[in-house]
Formats: sequence, C-alpha cells, structure tokens
Amino acid sequence: MAAKLTYFNGRGRAEVVRYVLAGAGIEFTEEFLEKPEDIEALRATGKLIFRQVPLLEIDGRAITQTEAMIRYIARNYGLYGSSEDEMIRCDMIYDGLKDAQVGLCGVKMEFLPSDVEKEANKKQMKEKIAKYFPMLQGFLADNNGKFLVGDRLSFVDLVFLHDLEWVQDCLGEEILKEYATIQAYRFQLQSLPNVAKYLASPQKKNYPDATYLASVRKVLYP
Amino acid sequence: MAAKLTYFNGRGRAEVVRYVLAGAGIEFTEEFLEKPEDIEALRATGKLIFRQVPLLEIDGRAITQTEAMIRYIARNYGLYGSSEDEMIRCDMIYDGLKDAQVGLCGVKMEFLPSDVEKEANKKQMKEKIAKYFPMLQGFLADNNGKFLVGDRLSFVDLVFLHDLEWVQDCLGEEILKEYATIQAYRFQLQSLPNVAKYLASPQKKNYPDATYLASVRKVLYP
Repeated sequence: MAAKLTYFNGRGRAEVVRYVLAGAGIEFTEEFLEKPEDIEALRATGKLIFRQVPLLEIDGRAITQTEAMIRYIARNYGLYGSSEDEMIRCDMIYDGLKDAQVGLCGVKMEFLPSDVEKEANKKQMKEKIAKYFPMLQGFLADNNGKFLVGDRLSFVDLVFLHDLEWVQDCLGEEILKEYATIQAYRFQLQSLPNVAKYLASPQKKNYPDATYLASVRKVLYP
Repeated sequence: MAAKLTYFNGRGRAEVVRYVLAGAGIEFTEEFLEKPEDIEALRATGKLIFRQVPLLEIDGRAITQTEAMIRYIARNYGLYGSSEDEMIRCDMIYDGLKDAQVGLCGVKMEFLPSDVEKEANKKQMKEKIAKYFPMLQGFLADNNGKFLVGDRLSFVDLVFLHDLEWVQDCLGEEILKEYATIQAYRFQLQSLPNVAKYLASPQKKNYPDATYLASVRKVLYP
C-alpha cells in the first residue's frame, strides 16, 4: 500500500520528507489541509501527538515530526549507510545541516512579514553557507564526490538536496557556482532515477506563492 | 575502556550527553578545554568534523554533534525502546523536546549579554512550557507515569530530565509544581541508580558561573 502524507499543498515542513520518500522509491499519496476543520478533525484522531502536521502514514504506522519520519524511512528503506560507522556519520552530518539552518531559512522566507526580515534571513543563509559549505564540500571531496556518506545514497544526501533547492530559489544559482563540487554532486543526485522522477512529477511543489501562504494561514490562524 | 568526553568544564552542549552516558551506565573520563591552543590542537586531529566540541570518544570511535552522540549511545546501549514502534515514538517525542527548546534556552541563558535578553529568554521558556508540558504530561499519564516510551528508560527520558534541571535552575521549582505527573516522574528518574550516582558525583556540573563563562570565551573568542 502506498504511503500517505498529510500537509498543506506546498513545500513547508513536508518537502524534505517528500525528497526522502522519493529517494527511497516509496510511492505516496497526499491529502491537503484546506480549512480549519481539516486539522481539527485530524487532531481529534490522536494521530498528531504534538497537534501539528505533517503526518506520514506508512506501513500501518502514523508518524509525526519531520525528523522522526526521515529516520523511519532511512532505517527501514536502506538510506542510513551500511554500517554503524556510516550511521554515525549520517547522524553527524545531518546535525551539521540542521545547525546550518539553510533549509529552515528557506522554509520560513515567504512567511516573514517584511522585506527587512526577509533580507536578514537571506543574510543569515549566506553566512551559514560561507561557514558550512566549504566543510560539506570537503566531506564530498574526501569521499567520492557522489554521496556524503559511503558509496550509496543516504537520507543526508536527500536532506542536503532539499536545502540546495531553497538556496537556489532564495538566493539564486550564482552562489552555488562558487562550490563546484557541491554543484556537480547536486546535478548527479537530481539525475538518480527515483529523484528525477519525483522532480518531474506533478507532486513536486513550487516555490511558495500567495495561494499557498493564504491556505496555511486559513487553516492555522482562522 | 571508559569513554572520554572533551568539552569545557561546565554544562553547555555536553551536559545532555553526560545524562545519557550516565543513564546508559557508561563510565567516562573528561578532558576540559582551557586555552585556544587546546581546541586548535583538537581541530588539527580532524576529529571535529564541524570544528566544534563536544567530542565523544567511545568504543574506538570519535563522535561529534550532540545528537549523533545521543543516538549512538541509545542504539548501542539499550536506550531506544524495544521495538520499531517504540523507536518511532522516541524519535517523535525527542523532536518535540527540541521544538520546545527548553533545554536550549537554559544552555544559552548565562551567555546572553543583557538582562533584557535574559528576561525574554525566560519568557520564551515559560511559553514553551505552557505549550508542551501538558502534552508531555499526557504522554506520561497514557503510558505508566514512569517513562515517556514503553516500560523502560530511553534516551528521551534523559534528555527531558536534563531539560527539567534547566527549568528548575532558570525559573525556579515553583513552575514545575503545576505539573505533578512530570514532577513525580522526574523524582523517580533521579532515583534510578545510574542517574542518582551521576547526580551525586563530582562529574555533575553546576549552573554556569563566571569562571565557566570566562573559560569558554577564552577558548573560543581569544
């Protein structure tokens, strides 16, 4: 049975999960929240343990919290390295990606209320890129250039690929050209069959537009 | 061989790891950074993949990033539940604790430069407690009152116990009295032999004082 992801009809906190589902080759359907009653009905089921979406239903289980979903998929679908040492390395690099907050800055960009705050957010993204991308590029160069950990795809690659899309969309592609190893790695990941299929599919969400922002606000802050 | 934890001589980002080591019954020695050369020497070894401490050396491995350490210990020392469903629940609740940022607010409190910022940080802690503690209390009540997940100690209990120490130290114990189930759970965790031994040991670090703050600044911002 296909997995089912419940969220808004946009990227938000669910997009990184979609990347990981896609990378794992898991087909998924989606249910989109459209009105306040939708999330209230979902809360009433008890499935949202912290009362928040996204919600992933998979293999007969109901999982909330983005990271918990990513780890479940990684553990059970071969995206967590191939040894204890590789699991540790996945965890360490994933923690670094979270510290860098590049993806998070992207997710919140269009929800910021003023241009001043958006510019500050872009500045933060640039500073974090300047700090973290040389290290990440080093990990790739020391490995094989193709994956961050070991000789196969892991969830960390998919999280980073997600983050890189936000970099391109928020700051433009120019900044990525300064990191040739990362750019080559990114294009190679985008060409993996499962990933390429997702990126070209109608399920792939675009950069947040007014319709999406309004739909989130309508559900959460009616 | 005992594990070894390298950090400053204080709580900071290492204290939660000390709680998890203690809960797992792992003996550990500590090395404290005291001067800028100490961290530079450590960086030169290549062990700090993001150039930051803490560093945990355990079972012949070198692990950085707090979460990666916690997950390594949890996976390998029986603190990650007893089934896939319990692992998922550990992950979900841990993510909620991170969203709540109560521990993080505590860690950064004394590093904030002004009383205004400290008060704002306390206010944030209180708001997050009001939002998250009723849910956490519900998880305990729905389980057995003794552990957040299943019928045994998990890393999530130790992370939460760490966070609760910061609540008491930053806001006073009064606020915890509003959550009787959490208080009873906390006292019971503190009385577990491995935990009690750690809390009473010379390794247990006190609330940050001027000496500790100065030592961190001396090493990181010479």
